[in-house]
Amino acid sequence: MQIAMVGLGRMGANMVRRLLGDGHACVVHDLDPQARRALEQAGATGAATLEELVSLLAPPRVVWLMVPAAAVDAAIASLAPLLDSGDTIVDGGNTHYRDDVRRAAELAGRGIHFVDVGTSGGVWGLDNGYCLMVGGEAAAVRRLEPVFASLAPRFDSVARSPGHSGAPAGAERGFLHCGPNGAGHFVKMVHNGIEYGLMAAYAEGFNLLRAAGAGAAAGDRAADAETAPSAGAGAPQYALDLAQIAELWRRGSVVRSWLLDLTADALRREPDLASLRGRVADSGEGRWMLQAAIDDGVPAPVLATALFARFASRDADDFANRVLSAMRLGFGGHVERDAAAKGG
Amino acid sequence: MQIAMVGLGRMGANMVRRLLGDGHACVVHDLDPQARRALEQAGATGAATLEELVSLLAPPRVVWLMVPAAAVDAAIASLAPLLDSGDTIVDGGNTHYRDDVRRAAELAGRGIHFVDVGTSGGVWGLDNGYCLMVGGEAAAVRRLEPVFASLAPRFDSVARSPGHSGAPAGAERGFLHCGPNGAGHFVKMVHNGIEYGLMAAYAEGFNLLRAAGAGAAAGDRAADAETAPSAGAGAPQYALDLAQIAELWRRGSVVRSWLLDLTADALRREPDLASLRGRVADSGEGRWMLQAAIDDGVPAPVLATALFARFASRDADDFANRVLSAMRLGFGGHVERDAAAKGG
Amino acid sequence: MQIAMVGLGRMGANMVRRLLGDGHACVVHDLDPQARRALEQAGATGAATLEELVSLLAPPRVVWLMVPAAAVDAAIASLAPLLDSGDTIVDGGNTHYRDDVRRAAELAGRGIHFVDVGTSGGVWGLDNGYCLMVGGEAAAVRRLEPVFASLAPRFDSVARSPGHSGAPAGAERGFLHCGPNGAGHFVKMVHNGIEYGLMAAYAEGFNLLRAAGAGAAAGDRAADAETAPSAGAGAPQYALDLAQIAELWRRGSVVRSWLLDLTADALRREPDLASLRGRVADSGEGRWMLQAAIDDGVPAPVLATALFARFASRDADDFANRVLSAMRLGFGGHVERDAAAKGG
Amino acid sequence: MQIAMVGLGRMGANMVRRLLGDGHACVVHDLDPQARRALEQAGATGAATLEELVSLLAPPRVVWLMVPAAAVDAAIASLAPLLDSGDTIVDGGNTHYRDDVRRAAELAGRGIHFVDVGTSGGVWGLDNGYCLMVGGEAAAVRRLEPVFASLAPRFDSVARSPGHSGAPAGAERGFLHCGPNGAGHFVKMVHNGIEYGLMAAYAEGFNLLRAAGAGAAAGDRAADAETAPSAGAGAPQYALDLAQIAELWRRGSVVRSWLLDLTADALRREPDLASLRGRVADSGEGRWMLQAAIDDGVPAPVLATALFARFASRDADDFANRVLSAMRLGFGGHVERDAAAKGG
Repeated sequence: MQIAMVGLGRMGANMVRRLLGDGHACVVHDLDPQARRALEQAGATGAATLEELVSLLAPPRVVWLMVPAAAVDAAIASLAPLLDSGDTIVDGGNTHYRDDVRRAAELAGRGIHFVDVGTSGGVWGLDNGYCLMVGGEAAAVRRLEPVFASLAPRFDSVARSPGHSGAPAGAERGFLHCGPNGAGHFVKMVHNGIEYGLMAAYAEGFNLLRAAGAGAAAGDRAADAETAPSAGAGAPQYALDLAQIAELWRRGSVVRSWLLDLTADALRREPDLASLRGRVADSGEGRWMLQAAIDDGVPAPVLATALFARFASRDADDFANRVLSAMRLGFGGHVERDAAAKGG
Repeated sequence: MQIAMVGLGRMGANMVRRLLGDGHACVVHDLDPQARRALEQAGATGAATLEELVSLLAPPRVVWLMVPAAAVDAAIASLAPLLDSGDTIVDGGNTHYRDDVRRAAELAGRGIHFVDVGTSGGVWGLDNGYCLMVGGEAAAVRRLEPVFASLAPRFDSVARSPGHSGAPAGAERGFLHCGPNGAGHFVKMVHNGIEYGLMAAYAEGFNLLRAAGAGAAAGDRAADAETAPSAGAGAPQYALDLAQIAELWRRGSVVRSWLLDLTADALRREPDLASLRGRVADSGEGRWMLQAAIDDGVPAPVLATALFARFASRDADDFANRVLSAMRLGFGGHVERDAAAKGG
Repeated sequence: MQIAMVGLGRMGANMVRRLLGDGHACVVHDLDPQARRALEQAGATGAATLEELVSLLAPPRVVWLMVPAAAVDAAIASLAPLLDSGDTIVDGGNTHYRDDVRRAAELAGRGIHFVDVGTSGGVWGLDNGYCLMVGGEAAAVRRLEPVFASLAPRFDSVARSPGHSGAPAGAERGFLHCGPNGAGHFVKMVHNGIEYGLMAAYAEGFNLLRAAGAGAAAGDRAADAETAPSAGAGAPQYALDLAQIAELWRRGSVVRSWLLDLTADALRREPDLASLRGRVADSGEGRWMLQAAIDDGVPAPVLATALFARFASRDADDFANRVLSAMRLGFGGHVERDAAAKGG
Repeated sequence: MQIAMVGLGRMGANMVRRLLGDGHACVVHDLDPQARRALEQAGATGAATLEELVSLLAPPRVVWLMVPAAAVDAAIASLAPLLDSGDTIVDGGNTHYRDDVRRAAELAGRGIHFVDVGTSGGVWGLDNGYCLMVGGEAAAVRRLEPVFASLAPRFDSVARSPGHSGAPAGAERGFLHCGPNGAGHFVKMVHNGIEYGLMAAYAEGFNLLRAAGAGAAAGDRAADAETAPSAGAGAPQYALDLAQIAELWRRGSVVRSWLLDLTADALRREPDLASLRGRVADSGEGRWMLQAAIDDGVPAPVLATALFARFASRDADDFANRVLSAMRLGFGGHVERDAAAKGG
């Protein structure tokens, strides 16, 4: 079917390529003419402006936005006056689900359908397909199914779960109508929150593997009045091959996952990850999930731990640590020592 | 090759079956004659006693223990006097790595080799193969490779990582010699600690999906002097199909994993998991990894969070919560209310 | 000076009594005529309606609101039309600081001053005085200083910090102009977030004291294939007198505090706190502080831990725990056991 | 009474001074002759060797050890052969309670009593007195009461708890016989674990106060495909006076405590704590309490959070953070940005 894509960054561009590969007609727009031209060469029809883009679409139109969350309101404000009743706007970006609800209501006043799509898959989506979490009215969602089907992973690319048979149905198609507007981005938000926790679990595991037995060495240091002997004293020390361990765990272990696949690959290419600084960014959904958990009175301690560890990786804990040092100085006269020292 | 298995519980019995299937000669022993007989029917040679078991093995012998960690010392004490220099004892159970170091040293005094094997795969290992993390001297480990190869997943059952080619090598064979004694169980311990974190990340995500929008309902409750209005007031509520979402995430999402496969299956069979009570046990490795992290001065906040959530699921937080209520009564005169109430 | 108090719950009523005791003229209103009458007997002038209340005040008027956060907008909507330019509304309740900013701007349009006051002290404030964190324009705040001075703790009731001398100044007066509107409630919010963390620290400490050595008992249980031996086996067990320990720590220890004073008193009166159920409420500020930390990119892991422990105390972790049990059943065939069992 | 002190560091020396001030006869020893001489000038009798020290004591002797935990075994090994049946060794340092149990049993074989004393008070103990948590046999403890009484805070230095009257009894004397050997250090260990949690609660609160409204500024940054808009956008920003707020909270607030007193003093002297680096040490008891909680199956999430934050303050989370960055690069092509950036 015909579909327009606005926003041709990494995600948007790859999604257009996957749609073109499945025979869909794509009209594309981006502020960057280079990005547009690259997709024209791949078979898409470029549009220099939103006006041109809309004029190239046959009603009822479908315009898929793949722009930064902060740019969605502006994009809709420009686009909506150009559209007609019966047209559909899709927001496939990383949007807060409450914004979906607001925007859907506003667009409904103009007769324009709004569909929110949480999209997972990253740079691998072009080849592997995207996992699509969809929110909106049933009719508007149904009309987009050919597009979702092309974007989703191929059915036979994933082992079927027990108890399933016959033609693929429901989530087996790689996309799911989760509920009314916002439900798609709500589910995507929780997906990302889980992702934070999974990543943190692996990260602390590999960190311990790397340090295996460090306590034994620490136990050798000279004793002094401030320092208790390490319980790790006498423990064996191991020099473990993290890349091989990650590769091993991919085979038959309980912790096998796609994130582990990526970790194994990264550790194989650079065992000590020395080219990275470990100042870890966060893109919003983790924060939003934590806020939703607070609002709903649901414990989310793993997510909170993972999110705050990222904040701390960017030194946002610096003043807190100085307050701790100040207290220790206050009650015990403890002067800070060298980083290597545990004691005090 | 010929190998003896002592301990024919779920894990031990399935491992024998997998070894028999690959043509190995298995001599088996268990205190429970039923367990022994079942494997005799599958082609193993049963031994009523350890003496008989040893007598049925041609030197140099290999005896694999698959017994509870608490029973390993007793098993070795019975077995070691029956063995000769050059024989090998394998501990494939859930043992603390420091016990391996101690036992290996003791057995070395008798000329008996000791190999520790962390074994992952659970009830699925029979069909899918086991992930084997091995510690011990290189020569003793090398001699066992035919056994490890049969227990491990088949090479072609897992997609090969980028950058690998030629004959499978190292961890691609599904087993890995991680280092000297204890290294196998150390790596398995960290594996299980990661597993705790992964499980907790999924659990809190699905919990939030289930509660989606509960804050909105809470926001409707009557205001009073103790209760602040919920930030969730006005938020959309969603009735989400968790089983379908789990199935969806198996396809192309960042959070796909084997644990998610299991979760999807469980939610399909019983969407509300009503038959479970949610009193979650822990089997030791999570505790050990946390202790190792403490000893080595390595942060493990996700693991700690996951482990303590399990303790709390068994009401071990009960008195702490009563202390909190007592303080609130003390400073604010707050009397405990009904569970549904957030306020106070 | 003359001041009106609207809202005569526990906090509002005691604040009026303290103001009356210092010679201020108080006009009071509450929907509950009983509450009004009780304060009339104490010397306040009761007003049956807001209209009457305003009519009893000499301009420029000061009306202090001590109502639930959810009732503030309605109270201001009723009150503002009755007031004149130059009058002041004070919100001394548990209000979100962003609401202060909005309300101050709205009232400024009418020439009405708005002052936000975070108030700590609970049921003890009547006798001990209240800790007052104030936000608003300097002139409006300065005008209220006689009221703040009467509500605050007496200067000599607290040991002076080192380095202070001369007449009490700044925070030593027991109240502080923290900044523009919202700053008072922002500081109070952080105060309450810290309070959550402090309470949780004591709660888990006393919980461990109570359980001292429980691991040793657990170590005696029968070993089985699922259960690793407890590291606690062989540890000494202690039957500790928690009330005496709390009383002891009040004297010279690093952890002495007012919350500890309350805990000591509670444990003395009921050593096992058996009359409490330990379903711990939360009143909003802890949630708000966590949200503010997320917004500002500041780690708040102790607060998150404390807040989520309260959620879990009200069984909000129930479904998450069942998901964990479902996974364990899935990968290991682990069937849930009795609560007392640690293994599996 | 006559008492010997071995180990004249900050703690030991001050305790001798306090004992001398109360008229006790003190024989003192330290490897550092300077430390010894300083106390001789204060009225103590110096001993150059343990032999001399023992010879200066009238049986039944009491020797109090105030040495690093790692040095206790050596000190006892040197001392015990010099003592007679009926003498008493006191360990007042930071010792693991299980070591107490072992040492008490060993010394009992020689007829020597052993008493463990957890001592809190830091550099302030000389003036304020020490909080003493005592473990051992009742008779041995009772004999030491005059010493404990002198070291403990004066009865009238702390406000009496409600419900107490008559002569001070039990914990009101500032020391407490908590139970058999190890109980003193067990209670002290939990005390220190609580201390970690309390400190962390204040530290993260002051950190947020300092950052108040940072999210609003972050919300202004240019939007891009990786970055979600900050929920903090539009929030007010406050430049708060942390020293004044700490001083304020000392007066009537729920969070008042001795640690807050110290924090107020530190912030007054150096508002930005710029002379500190925030690499926070830990002295062992926090680790031990966490291990005890694990052993006993008791949740200790606040302590774990506080302890791991200290590890991370010393960059022990560095490799974990690089693993996170590696994963993000793997699935999303996210390249690390400047520290100031939140997005991605």
